[in-house]
Amino acid sequence: MPAYEPPYYAVVFTSVRTADQAGYGETAERMEELVKEVPGFLGMDHAQTPGGPSITVGYFRDVEAIEEWRAHVEHRAAQRRGRAEWYERYTLHVAKVERSHGFERSRGTERGGEVEPGGKVEPGGEVE
Amino acid sequence: MPAYEPPYYAVVFTSVRTADQAGYGETAERMEELVKEVPGFLGMDHAQTPGGPSITVGYFRDVEAIEEWRAHVEHRAAQRRGRAEWYERYTLHVAKVERSHGFERSRGTERGGEVEPGGKVEPGGEVE
Repeated sequence: MPAYEPPYYAVVFTSVRTADQAGYGETAERMEELVKEVPGFLGMDHAQTPGGPSITVGYFRDVEAIEEWRAHVEHRAAQRRGRAEWYERYTLHVAKVERSHGFERSRGTERGGEVEPGGKVEPGGEVE
Repeated sequence: MPAYEPPYYAVVFTSVRTADQAGYGETAERMEELVKEVPGFLGMDHAQTPGGPSITVGYFRDVEAIEEWRAHVEHRAAQRRGRAEWYERYTLHVAKVERSHGFERSRGTERGGEVEPGGKVEPGGEVE
């Protein structure tokens, strides 16, 4: 969960799944492998409350990378199966990151960057 | 987890917590109450993998709403305590949503909207 240097995109996928999860785990693993091959894919975070909501956030350098992943043939098949079997409901938000920063206890410091209106990256200094 | 009409902001907070979580639950509940009072706060999603990462996404209408929440006196005290006690590490990404859509099994349909470069909201039609 690093803070990348803006600009980049966060694709936030929140979902609640159905009782029938046959095949879900294998497909999720396969998707995780595939997305790493997309040029411009930066990383992802995932959390799942047992029996509750799940959130996956994928980070991409630009909209072209998101579009390539969205249109990937195997990914599209997984999306269709997800709607047919695995998801009770979901929401997807595609958002352009304007600033980000992180904190690590071991370093005792924060690090981050933000994009000035002109697109200049201003490292550090941002305190949440 | 609705898909709001863009434009709006998603504040993505990913964290891994320490072993010492004394006081965390009460503070988290209090913050959830307080953020709802911020004008322009739209909603939030949360997922927590037991013993693993946690993701909270807050949705806000604009940067002014985010700034008001960021600067809230009780929230700032909670942030300081979080860094001192509760968080092993965290990352925060502030991102402007350009498009979003949702799916609900009961409706069997998708719904969503996206922002055209001119700022026009274009409802529906987006298929993930």
